[in-house]
Amino acid sequence: MKKPQELSFDQAAVFQISHAQRTGLELIWDRLEAQEPQCGFGTLGLCCRHCVMGPCRIDPLGDGPKKGVCGATADTLVARHLCRMIAAGAAAHSDHGRRPAILLKEVALGENSAYTIKDEEKLRAVAARLGISPEGEVSQVALAVAEVALSDFGKQDTRPLRFLEAYAPKKRLEHWQKLEEKLLAQTGALFGVLPRSIDREVVDIMHRTTMGMDHDPASLLLQGVRCALSDGWGGSLIATEIQDILFGTPYPRKVRANLGVLKEEAVNIVVHGHEPVLSEMIVQVAQEEELVKMAREMGAEGINVVGLCCTGNEILLRQGVPVAGNELHSELVLTTGLCEAMVVDVQCIYPALPRLAQCFHTKFISTSDQAKFPGAVHIQFFEEKAAEVARAIVRLAVENFKNRDPQKVHYPRIAEEALVGFSVEALLKALGGSVKPLVDAIAQGVIKGVAGIVGCNNPKVRQDYFLVSLCRELLKRDILVVGTGCWAIAAAKAGLMKPEAAAEAGPGVKQLCETLGIPPALHMGSCVDCSRMLVLLGAVADHLSCDISDLPVAGSAPEWTTEKAVSIGTYFVASGVPVHLWPAPPVLGSPAVTKLLTQELDSLLGGFFFVEEEPAKAARKMEEVILARRKKLGLG
Amino acid sequence: MKKPQELSFDQAAVFQISHAQRTGLELIWDRLEAQEPQCGFGTLGLCCRHCVMGPCRIDPLGDGPKKGVCGATADTLVARHLCRMIAAGAAAHSDHGRRPAILLKEVALGENSAYTIKDEEKLRAVAARLGISPEGEVSQVALAVAEVALSDFGKQDTRPLRFLEAYAPKKRLEHWQKLEEKLLAQTGALFGVLPRSIDREVVDIMHRTTMGMDHDPASLLLQGVRCALSDGWGGSLIATEIQDILFGTPYPRKVRANLGVLKEEAVNIVVHGHEPVLSEMIVQVAQEEELVKMAREMGAEGINVVGLCCTGNEILLRQGVPVAGNELHSELVLTTGLCEAMVVDVQCIYPALPRLAQCFHTKFISTSDQAKFPGAVHIQFFEEKAAEVARAIVRLAVENFKNRDPQKVHYPRIAEEALVGFSVEALLKALGGSVKPLVDAIAQGVIKGVAGIVGCNNPKVRQDYFLVSLCRELLKRDILVVGTGCWAIAAAKAGLMKPEAAAEAGPGVKQLCETLGIPPALHMGSCVDCSRMLVLLGAVADHLSCDISDLPVAGSAPEWTTEKAVSIGTYFVASGVPVHLWPAPPVLGSPAVTKLLTQELDSLLGGFFFVEEEPAKAARKMEEVILARRKKLGLG
Repeated sequence: MKKPQELSFDQAAVFQISHAQRTGLELIWDRLEAQEPQCGFGTLGLCCRHCVMGPCRIDPLGDGPKKGVCGATADTLVARHLCRMIAAGAAAHSDHGRRPAILLKEVALGENSAYTIKDEEKLRAVAARLGISPEGEVSQVALAVAEVALSDFGKQDTRPLRFLEAYAPKKRLEHWQKLEEKLLAQTGALFGVLPRSIDREVVDIMHRTTMGMDHDPASLLLQGVRCALSDGWGGSLIATEIQDILFGTPYPRKVRANLGVLKEEAVNIVVHGHEPVLSEMIVQVAQEEELVKMAREMGAEGINVVGLCCTGNEILLRQGVPVAGNELHSELVLTTGLCEAMVVDVQCIYPALPRLAQCFHTKFISTSDQAKFPGAVHIQFFEEKAAEVARAIVRLAVENFKNRDPQKVHYPRIAEEALVGFSVEALLKALGGSVKPLVDAIAQGVIKGVAGIVGCNNPKVRQDYFLVSLCRELLKRDILVVGTGCWAIAAAKAGLMKPEAAAEAGPGVKQLCETLGIPPALHMGSCVDCSRMLVLLGAVADHLSCDISDLPVAGSAPEWTTEKAVSIGTYFVASGVPVHLWPAPPVLGSPAVTKLLTQELDSLLGGFFFVEEEPAKAARKMEEVILARRKKLGLG
Repeated sequence: MKKPQELSFDQAAVFQISHAQRTGLELIWDRLEAQEPQCGFGTLGLCCRHCVMGPCRIDPLGDGPKKGVCGATADTLVARHLCRMIAAGAAAHSDHGRRPAILLKEVALGENSAYTIKDEEKLRAVAARLGISPEGEVSQVALAVAEVALSDFGKQDTRPLRFLEAYAPKKRLEHWQKLEEKLLAQTGALFGVLPRSIDREVVDIMHRTTMGMDHDPASLLLQGVRCALSDGWGGSLIATEIQDILFGTPYPRKVRANLGVLKEEAVNIVVHGHEPVLSEMIVQVAQEEELVKMAREMGAEGINVVGLCCTGNEILLRQGVPVAGNELHSELVLTTGLCEAMVVDVQCIYPALPRLAQCFHTKFISTSDQAKFPGAVHIQFFEEKAAEVARAIVRLAVENFKNRDPQKVHYPRIAEEALVGFSVEALLKALGGSVKPLVDAIAQGVIKGVAGIVGCNNPKVRQDYFLVSLCRELLKRDILVVGTGCWAIAAAKAGLMKPEAAAEAGPGVKQLCETLGIPPALHMGSCVDCSRMLVLLGAVADHLSCDISDLPVAGSAPEWTTEKAVSIGTYFVASGVPVHLWPAPPVLGSPAVTKLLTQELDSLLGGFFFVEEEPAKAARKMEEVILARRKKLGLG
């Protein structure tokens, strides 16, 4: 059994893992160990189950088979699997975006009165951007915005997504258009990378990767690019923009992060997952007099809603709700014995959680018909009865307070402060209304550039170590760090989101942060909010009349886990941002695909992937990319 | 090395396999042998690569891990993988259907003049069925039909597909609606099985099967059902109906089937794949004076276009173009040395083909940007320049005639006659305008019922043996057989589609066939045309005011291979038809999922899956199903 310190870089986690090990509670690291050694074919991408002539495996080294039964090679197997990962990831984000889009339409039509439009200013700004008249009745503008969003999901023509056309910077849009013409001229085949509709690109991949379809790795990957772009500049962007409209655009606020946000004296409700539609409502009703009174009658001080993972990020940024942790904290929070309920919506919810909850008094409550869990209490969430459902859930948690076993309570009193909420709007406000001060700071060499870090914990990587160390390494090199998802929570837990943390950074970042009153690591949102980084990149590119691929920026997903992360990485690369990954994606079984991803995509898209196992090395490589781009721009 | 007779039941294939073995040509059976033993985890469905915490494997027997890293069990792994197979299969069929729908719109708007509406009567009939006024200008009616189809692909509301509502029989529609209410009442979760839009259900599955989402096998499978229904009563149905509108509804015609349709004296062009949009045009231009003249100048007698697989079925039924074989003939046809060109569109095209073509003078020509092949000549097909592209392809083939090496020519002079083209319209015509004579024949016990056999060859099964033997066994039992895809070609090759073949059948089928002048095995089309069987089932059910699940019918996919087949099987089961499968699908690693598929789905949907390895046993089981339903209907 590995030592807790080897498993996590987070001291609260180490405390809790030690406790679990002592008390014999199974955690994710135990299951990973039980799975080892993991299948080498799968790890390299050399396995195919796309038809029942298989399963087929390609022997990468020995004299075993080099082709599947149909004749598919390693290149095809690897590219097809990667494409399906992108399709699944894009589907997840985009399906998420569909929900607020439908809700906005219902609110606009008066079909749903549980929600309102909280940010009219954002609504009108989004409308204007989409070429919709921002004047007039809120409900009319909202309906028009919702209709454009829904049309982007389902339209059947070949025109690019309207959201993409409205939000992507000019030069990048031209780059994609020219790429299509270039590829058609070169290969005689259509290789459009501009997405036609969000759903269609997922379907295209699923079709294309069935037996006897596309076998050309470049052709496959370019469809992967198109699908990923429909996520980044489509589904995810729609999610972010419409959630802001419905729930408010995030602005800077102080919050607390880590397991210490649990309160021994209160009814603790952990909301986990990704969508704010339910969690916003839980936060709201948990403040209602009647429920608070009920909690007091049960002997609690009150009701303490805390977030986890990206649902956590959503309500952290908009409501200042404390966040108990990122993905690998989802089991640990249960082992505290303090949770009256864990309420989940969708994505990244380990099915091990309801079983672990049963070792405690904790009610594990699932709410989405798209995400059911054996062993869970299921309370179906209906948007039109949002408040009632949320009240029923909170009531269940409150009633469960009496069942808490003090003998089983064990938690670390560890939590950090953080200044979060750096939406593009908030950043622009901090910058005085324009990206110019940021651009000037880069141009004058105050900072070298900007890095984005995103997503996931992965038990194969010491929790938060790479996320936090990479961030520190970049800051030391005078590279400002922005990011989302599990990285953002890791950085908050590590104290990097306090303005004082600027002291750890290089002199330039320090100066910039002090001038603007911002921390050196900026929390831009949940994983769908990676779209905020795209929008920021777009604003800077348009300000400079250049392409994103000219900007001194780089990205990283250093502890990535999900198929969503593959889609995110791909849309950043496809938008002109070099992206670091760790662990290595399952592509190494194909030198051709590996070369495409790490080299050839650069000439096509101005972005590429690279893999590094060490934070310092990854930071150095990211710095190199940024310096090379500075040089190309003529900056010292 | 296995003997050719063990590999195929088709004597032409045996002849050709022997030749390939003698001359050292690699065939699919060699690659299957090289892959053996295939991965047991994959075969049982116990492998997961949906995130990079994996790959994970569940040990079904020993004391290895019973959970993936996230905690997912065998049940989740198996159900998720099956769902993704359905999603991929539905995506393939539906993406196919999208193409003629878009083309119909373009033709209606005058944006495409390469195609016309060949079957106005069908257009008006489809319009009427959809509740569109069938009167007036053809182009107006066509536009309205196309718009409804395209809306079914992309609409974002929760109303069921309009095609499904218009075509599904009344009682079945009610059954699905009630099921939704029942499940909601029972489980408190939404479990709709009525598809909202074709693309959306694929996306839903891809989202739902990402890490940390749906872990409940029943919930997963019901979404699989919903997606499959969007294929059968949506994408596939749209493909069939609109292809009939554009290219003509099939009516009975005599054709020839098997490798002997190649002509030593002619330029042979093999069209392979699934869509008729290109192949119809190739058939058309290959008859043009100029090209025929050019062929004669090259020393050939003329141009001989032959079909393969489902593109073959499309032009077989509509144009009487001979079919060279089903899926496992795709390599064999190349080994004849007689093919000047193999022209492919999409689906089921082994990537081994271009490599094999290079052992001969054959040009392997790919035409779809969704299906590229290393080693192929790519000539991109554009609908708006359809005739020009088709001419360029035919010209290339004709010019290649001079390169044919007589030393390499080796082919069997084997081909069978067949009477094919039993669209629902054609069947109704044969029946005198109504399903009544068929219903009467069943009611009076002249025949016991009807079986549908579909799809695929699979090198794990002796080619055509199960397809043909099962058909014979059913006919002997006085069960009429209808079907599509590779089965239909197998039955044609085996002579079962000659009216005289009725002599092999039981007395009832014999009598019925003689009365109606039809063969005992009825060719209803390509694999998307499985929708024709649904429409026929619907017509009979509505005629009797009963549900499909009441009818004495059963289905089988006895040599299935593709993910499409999983979708087909699922939509038949979901429509109330018990379906036999061989080989076993990758579900046996989960007893719970296996039980759901083989037992529990029956009470929910009136259909279920079963697995049998022997044709006679499968026929017996299908007969049992049919007899049990007869009994329930009070028929002797």
